[in-house]
Amino acid sequence: MAAAGREFFTVKTVAEALTEFRPAHRSGVETVTLDRARGRIPAEQIHAREALPGFDRSSVDGYAVRARDTFGASEAIPAYLRVTGAVRMGAGADDGVQPESAIAIPTGGMVPAGADAVVMIEHTQEAMPGTIEVVRPVAPGEGIVRGDEDLVPGAAMVHPGRPLRAQDVALLAAAGVTRLRVHAAPRVAIIATGDEVVAPETSELAAGQVRDALSLSIGALVAEAGGEPGSPLIIPDDGEALLTALSRSVGDSDMIVVCAGSSVGARDETAGAIAALPGSETWCHGLAIKPGKPTLLAHSDGIPIVGLPGNPRSALVVFRLIGMPLVRLAGGWTEQVPAGTVRARLTRDLPSAAGRLDVVQVRLRDAQAEPLFGPSALLSVLTAADGYLIVDEDATGLAAGAEVEVFPYV
Amino acid sequence: MAAAGREFFTVKTVAEALTEFRPAHRSGVETVTLDRARGRIPAEQIHAREALPGFDRSSVDGYAVRARDTFGASEAIPAYLRVTGAVRMGAGADDGVQPESAIAIPTGGMVPAGADAVVMIEHTQEAMPGTIEVVRPVAPGEGIVRGDEDLVPGAAMVHPGRPLRAQDVALLAAAGVTRLRVHAAPRVAIIATGDEVVAPETSELAAGQVRDALSLSIGALVAEAGGEPGSPLIIPDDGEALLTALSRSVGDSDMIVVCAGSSVGARDETAGAIAALPGSETWCHGLAIKPGKPTLLAHSDGIPIVGLPGNPRSALVVFRLIGMPLVRLAGGWTEQVPAGTVRARLTRDLPSAAGRLDVVQVRLRDAQAEPLFGPSALLSVLTAADGYLIVDEDATGLAAGAEVEVFPYV
Repeated sequence: MAAAGREFFTVKTVAEALTEFRPAHRSGVETVTLDRARGRIPAEQIHAREALPGFDRSSVDGYAVRARDTFGASEAIPAYLRVTGAVRMGAGADDGVQPESAIAIPTGGMVPAGADAVVMIEHTQEAMPGTIEVVRPVAPGEGIVRGDEDLVPGAAMVHPGRPLRAQDVALLAAAGVTRLRVHAAPRVAIIATGDEVVAPETSELAAGQVRDALSLSIGALVAEAGGEPGSPLIIPDDGEALLTALSRSVGDSDMIVVCAGSSVGARDETAGAIAALPGSETWCHGLAIKPGKPTLLAHSDGIPIVGLPGNPRSALVVFRLIGMPLVRLAGGWTEQVPAGTVRARLTRDLPSAAGRLDVVQVRLRDAQAEPLFGPSALLSVLTAADGYLIVDEDATGLAAGAEVEVFPYV
Repeated sequence: MAAAGREFFTVKTVAEALTEFRPAHRSGVETVTLDRARGRIPAEQIHAREALPGFDRSSVDGYAVRARDTFGASEAIPAYLRVTGAVRMGAGADDGVQPESAIAIPTGGMVPAGADAVVMIEHTQEAMPGTIEVVRPVAPGEGIVRGDEDLVPGAAMVHPGRPLRAQDVALLAAAGVTRLRVHAAPRVAIIATGDEVVAPETSELAAGQVRDALSLSIGALVAEAGGEPGSPLIIPDDGEALLTALSRSVGDSDMIVVCAGSSVGARDETAGAIAALPGSETWCHGLAIKPGKPTLLAHSDGIPIVGLPGNPRSALVVFRLIGMPLVRLAGGWTEQVPAGTVRARLTRDLPSAAGRLDVVQVRLRDAQAEPLFGPSALLSVLTAADGYLIVDEDATGLAAGAEVEVFPYV
């Protein structure tokens, strides 16, 4: 039967899928303004046109001086300097610093000509109107941020291959870069199949019907990964209809997700339709993961195609682990960035079969991770979870009390 | 002098700020469609109107049977059952299961009347056309997901007080909830002050001018926290101008951020303008954190006001730690969710003063965390970092080789 035959199909590990299944297609390039740049992937390196901050700035409130005029200064024998002016923010001093004199300067002010250090105001006192006592010496360069200390002209400013963060936006703003070329959000077609599947808007269900739980939730994960989910498309369990939908999608998408029917027959039809798509190559028919084994990975001329298991819960687990990285890759995010985890103690033993990666949903309470179980069809197990942990392929389970790393859902 | 006087002002710890500074104002409520619901905070509990999945479903490919008809079945003495029909997906069987008979059913199919179990196809074989042999017994309920196993009518479906995740969207879709009431994204006014500050679009800078690095980058963090940043507003170092801007912002914002000037005088003016705002109360004038000490926290009739340090780098560090939680709170995110970290080994000793929380930028390479240093005015230290670590108030430093938890930037 089909069920037995499937066992001969290609099954890969999650690690193999993540490192070896790297379809070549990338989304296009577009220009965005800087206020829209966070989370976008630069399409090219951006170089500084000028030095930053652009002029020597004071890093303290105090007095711009010639350092040598303060050498040897102490509480007992202060250096006396004439105050000949004040630096205004956003402008500068009218004159430079002369020998044995000082110019008042606020933090961030432009260091006047002639000065090579700034004495903190706390190390000075007013001796008489127009004259200060400096009670500690400063070294040349002290209290000053050099004009090219943040960026030298031509310096690289961003990391192409990973999303811009707030601090990247800050640096670009400081450097006057307010428009930039980024990868377009990858357009991800989402096709749900199943004779029983109807749109979520359906208020009255006929016997045996279920609402499409996956299109919008997979779309949510697509968006979380920086992609743009297409409008949900529900088609019956019919290879021809699926092939037609795939053929249409492949032209205007950067990735395709098929939420396969849950029966073996429906899965076989999905596999067949994907194989029949011109230019397609099927990379695996299954993953060594629980839940989520019946996951199909393929590409059509470099456009990734993910065939998800029919169970909504399995589909969401697999898409988080395998699908989201593919969305990121299609969108130009090529650099690995480690994911943060929360450490917790396992509340009970977790059995697991070797050779298979297990994804276990957990509730987190006071640094305790409580595994949640239930049939893989149940979504409520996922919604009750605060995160998940992974039992690796080579482990045969985890003991109660073991320290685990939980990937939190936010 | 002003500098000395400030030391008497209220300084709080980061932990105190996070737990005790909880301004009461919340953003409004709006209705969104489910395709826009991810990351939004439900404004109320949502209860299931009906059971889910709504009917008894098969969890395997196989045959719906009366369990008692399989009792005692084995390879040697199989149970022989007549196959009287097949369940179609999205419909059901035409008839119920009769004694000594079975109805073929795919995974997800509606279990026909009369059946109380589903035998996996792997545990059957065709004895002759129209008859199967069952070689293992099934218990009542086996192979079936009960009609109310995922949700009973009236069950709570979401966690108000924290953002909806993909799985919450899936459950709501399955339950037919396609519109829901959520907190509006909190509108955050961002006011940058400083005579030297000009818009990022400024191509030619006059002597002593700098481009506004903060408005767009703080706006990026606001958006990351689920808020809606207002249009950047740059005003001079002038208490009256700031008070006017604050008064205008307070009417149509859920939170206000002031990027203060960097000098002591400018900070004092900011503090004065915030104190002069009707209905305002200043909660602290400083935080025991490095960088970021000159942070002011206040509220005006429950609307949080954050006065950030003048240094862009300090401001970004503080806003991530203190400002983003306030954006979330204003947007109705009241539940604590633990943040994930990456474990790494410190490459060198990190000195730190007790009584102060230190935020140290690090580069991550092969599970090694390399601290990055430099004047707090430098943005390039932040852009070079892959994450940051925290040296707590009670620690006096960390030794090279120590295991640290790094909060990754994504």
